[in-house]
Amino acid sequence: MVIVIQCTDQIGLVAKISGLLAEEKFNILSMHEHVDKSANLFFMRLEVDKQSNGVLEQKLHQLLPPDALVKVNPNPEKRIIVLVTKEYHCLADILIRNYFKTLGASVQCVIGNYTNLEDICKRFDIPFYHIAFEGSSVDAENQILDTIARYEHDYLVLAKFMRILSPGFVGRFPGKIINIHHSFLPAFAGANPYKQAYERGVKLVGATAHFVTDDLDEGPIIAQQIISADHSLTAADMMKAGKEIETAVLAKALRVVFDDRVFIYKNKTVVLE
Amino acid sequence: MVIVIQCTDQIGLVAKISGLLAEEKFNILSMHEHVDKSANLFFMRLEVDKQSNGVLEQKLHQLLPPDALVKVNPNPEKRIIVLVTKEYHCLADILIRNYFKTLGASVQCVIGNYTNLEDICKRFDIPFYHIAFEGSSVDAENQILDTIARYEHDYLVLAKFMRILSPGFVGRFPGKIINIHHSFLPAFAGANPYKQAYERGVKLVGATAHFVTDDLDEGPIIAQQIISADHSLTAADMMKAGKEIETAVLAKALRVVFDDRVFIYKNKTVVLE
Amino acid sequence: MVIVIQCTDQIGLVAKISGLLAEEKFNILSMHEHVDKSANLFFMRLEVDKQSNGVLEQKLHQLLPPDALVKVNPNPEKRIIVLVTKEYHCLADILIRNYFKTLGASVQCVIGNYTNLEDICKRFDIPFYHIAFEGSSVDAENQILDTIARYEHDYLVLAKFMRILSPGFVGRFPGKIINIHHSFLPAFAGANPYKQAYERGVKLVGATAHFVTDDLDEGPIIAQQIISADHSLTAADMMKAGKEIETAVLAKALRVVFDDRVFIYKNKTVVLE
Amino acid sequence: MVIVIQCTDQIGLVAKISGLLAEEKFNILSMHEHVDKSANLFFMRLEVDKQSNGVLEQKLHQLLPPDALVKVNPNPEKRIIVLVTKEYHCLADILIRNYFKTLGASVQCVIGNYTNLEDICKRFDIPFYHIAFEGSSVDAENQILDTIARYEHDYLVLAKFMRILSPGFVGRFPGKIINIHHSFLPAFAGANPYKQAYERGVKLVGATAHFVTDDLDEGPIIAQQIISADHSLTAADMMKAGKEIETAVLAKALRVVFDDRVFIYKNKTVVLE
Repeated sequence: MVIVIQCTDQIGLVAKISGLLAEEKFNILSMHEHVDKSANLFFMRLEVDKQSNGVLEQKLHQLLPPDALVKVNPNPEKRIIVLVTKEYHCLADILIRNYFKTLGASVQCVIGNYTNLEDICKRFDIPFYHIAFEGSSVDAENQILDTIARYEHDYLVLAKFMRILSPGFVGRFPGKIINIHHSFLPAFAGANPYKQAYERGVKLVGATAHFVTDDLDEGPIIAQQIISADHSLTAADMMKAGKEIETAVLAKALRVVFDDRVFIYKNKTVVLE
Repeated sequence: MVIVIQCTDQIGLVAKISGLLAEEKFNILSMHEHVDKSANLFFMRLEVDKQSNGVLEQKLHQLLPPDALVKVNPNPEKRIIVLVTKEYHCLADILIRNYFKTLGASVQCVIGNYTNLEDICKRFDIPFYHIAFEGSSVDAENQILDTIARYEHDYLVLAKFMRILSPGFVGRFPGKIINIHHSFLPAFAGANPYKQAYERGVKLVGATAHFVTDDLDEGPIIAQQIISADHSLTAADMMKAGKEIETAVLAKALRVVFDDRVFIYKNKTVVLE
Repeated sequence: MVIVIQCTDQIGLVAKISGLLAEEKFNILSMHEHVDKSANLFFMRLEVDKQSNGVLEQKLHQLLPPDALVKVNPNPEKRIIVLVTKEYHCLADILIRNYFKTLGASVQCVIGNYTNLEDICKRFDIPFYHIAFEGSSVDAENQILDTIARYEHDYLVLAKFMRILSPGFVGRFPGKIINIHHSFLPAFAGANPYKQAYERGVKLVGATAHFVTDDLDEGPIIAQQIISADHSLTAADMMKAGKEIETAVLAKALRVVFDDRVFIYKNKTVVLE
Repeated sequence: MVIVIQCTDQIGLVAKISGLLAEEKFNILSMHEHVDKSANLFFMRLEVDKQSNGVLEQKLHQLLPPDALVKVNPNPEKRIIVLVTKEYHCLADILIRNYFKTLGASVQCVIGNYTNLEDICKRFDIPFYHIAFEGSSVDAENQILDTIARYEHDYLVLAKFMRILSPGFVGRFPGKIINIHHSFLPAFAGANPYKQAYERGVKLVGATAHFVTDDLDEGPIIAQQIISADHSLTAADMMKAGKEIETAVLAKALRVVFDDRVFIYKNKTVVLE
């Protein structure tokens, strides 16, 4: 059973928590904690050897500062809805892991603003909804909300969803929307970043998975990684290489999120692995 | 013997060049070439098995388009001047490789705007000049120019030199000043980038070596690399990790530059390894 | 159009080849060559801008040493047969790329010595043959040969096929069988390498893709890569991490093989990228 | 102040330890712990905000199982003796960090079985002893022991020391000798491993830092890393690349050892970072 705790830091927190668990006869299988001194915040993730007797969460709240966020036995099988545009690489990786039950979550449905990824979803018996973003994006967002409402869901995963969601939409799902996007050293703003990166002769192509906030592409970072590039790559080659690393980075981010290892505060994350 | 060629691309360039070399009884030990289709440019680096008979460069120019840049047997032992501020990591790496004759260049002198790195230079018998940047940077730049003028030099290496050189200064050394700086995904402008990176919770710390142009930190990139980071690193830890990767990236960039593997055009490089 | 050449090295080979191409009005789009001095062998891969007029291969043979291997316009769409046991990760990656036509080859059929991967093949309309290795492996190998004979094929891909193929079988497909296997620093022989790696506390988990020869796990290496590990990983975690890197390394190896970038000689490869 | 603990695992250990620290008014700045379930062992490293009142170690022993190894405030400035042969790269890196006080240890002296590294030591005012391994290695080992005896020392660092130390010698310094050696996938036994690696066409060059035990190159691993290689590297190039990664891996290993982050048990390590 997993227990996650986030609260103001105090002397003796670890002693209190581990003392309670010992008293209640839980054996700690793994414990990761982190203290952010500058923010005076305490983060902990525990795995214990038996299921809760139901009152553990209440007892933890009695021990901990009043601002404590405590989750005892968070839903171990997350449910997700995936949003896509045209690119298949991240979606296919998610569908494969979902099919073989190694995703740590179950895909409820896929929403795409094109239809080209409908067939791959059908092959895996996953409902696909086509919602075009051609006219007003307000209409499209409302259709998405209606569709989402029909399914239980813990997270929305933007698996190369290339439309901008409004602050109003994003604000409904704080800490619940995960995005993957390309990233470079230096960063390139504006259209066609791969072309810009090619013209600048970058020697790296990267990807960043992050939670979505109102500030586009600027939410708390969950995972990042890069692969090397050189002059022999065209802009199209860089895009291909970018897709490989995007797939890997999103997979890594989803693994730690679904495994309850990610804590959000301010505009950053703690990932307790 | 090394031969490097950069010119407008044409059909048959490789045939012409390799034909001439065969005719002149040079055996090609290695040949790397690259064509940038979008810029219609041809780049080649050759190693051949004997020294030039002196007329080879002239014969190559007769064969090649009029815009051709040709270097036959470029100075195999570059001479460099290193500029530093307070941080030792890149300078020490250069001094060690210089001492053991594995730098591919010889350090003529070191110029620092603080004095704390004077002793390490003396231990390696390298002249050190202290030129403060306290008053007018015009004066300081003039002192640097006077000092540089006393030494033969192929390149100026900014090994964590934390002062901004004026366009007038930079303009005197086109393609001859090499800089190393931290870099992140996303990029952070302004003061104290490590603090910004920490506050943003980046999962990577990187470094970029590049030629210096008027556009600060924006010249042609020679080498880039990153190391992984996580929430357990403080801003100070990120800076430490950054130093390790800066040292490695600058060493890599110097190796390829001194080995005549780097071609500059537009705002980018081709590195033929 | 791709041209690949492998032959004894001679002075003037590049001049001869590029001269012929210029004469025949081919424009060279990219050219990679390598000379192994110790083996006195020359390797070249060219991309040119038009299809062969049919006599180019013959003219190349007239120019080149008698031992030359020349392929002009090798089949750009390879056909492959995939062999699997129980693990899905490499197979699924191949099936996805095959479905989206980014594999550079087309999967003809899949042969498995268990049945658990039959369903995923069916979802992609790929024939699956169950051939158990329970009794004599001679019988099983004969069944595989019979099955293979029903399909055109350029390569056999062992995508986590955990049975040993006999020298007789392997000898029928020289340079045509590609395998992926785990690998570690140091190497671990015998059963359950992940358990051994765990007990030794390795800090890396790797994977190697290679051509299969009689010497098990010892054929020419095509691609290798690693990911970091530490004490917090159990043997099962190491195996999971190993699967991610196996998938990536096999994908990379297949890309360069299918793109005619890999040359085999002695017990090694040249990969011209 | 650092506290490190290694003992048989029990329910409630974390509660006991953190309870004692809270009672004694220590604030925990960082805490890392690991439990090896298969070995039933508990490992912990703590940083607390004040120095010990002297009785803390005794109180910890009263709390913990009888087999507990406890170090309260281990010597924060380790003293080391470095053994070298001819290669400079690891030694120079250690001398630089030692000079700038970023090594986390102080170099007492250097022992070399050649004299070529004497000058660099003198430039840093570090005593150098030449002890040849030409005749009996028993004599040479005795000379090393005599030399070592003249200095306080916590660790012996074999910084490319290319002689084999006898079991008798090694047995005197259990967990106190750190070695760096090249490593490959697959591993190569015997002489000239870089030549073997070249002939096998490996795509990686690696390095492993480990504690030395009687079993040559087989002690507990502290750190490992690799860099990519390809066919364009000669055996000499691979050796050069190997030196870069050896330097980086030994530096990393020394950092974690000197920072009291490494625990040894069985034939492996736990590194609590």
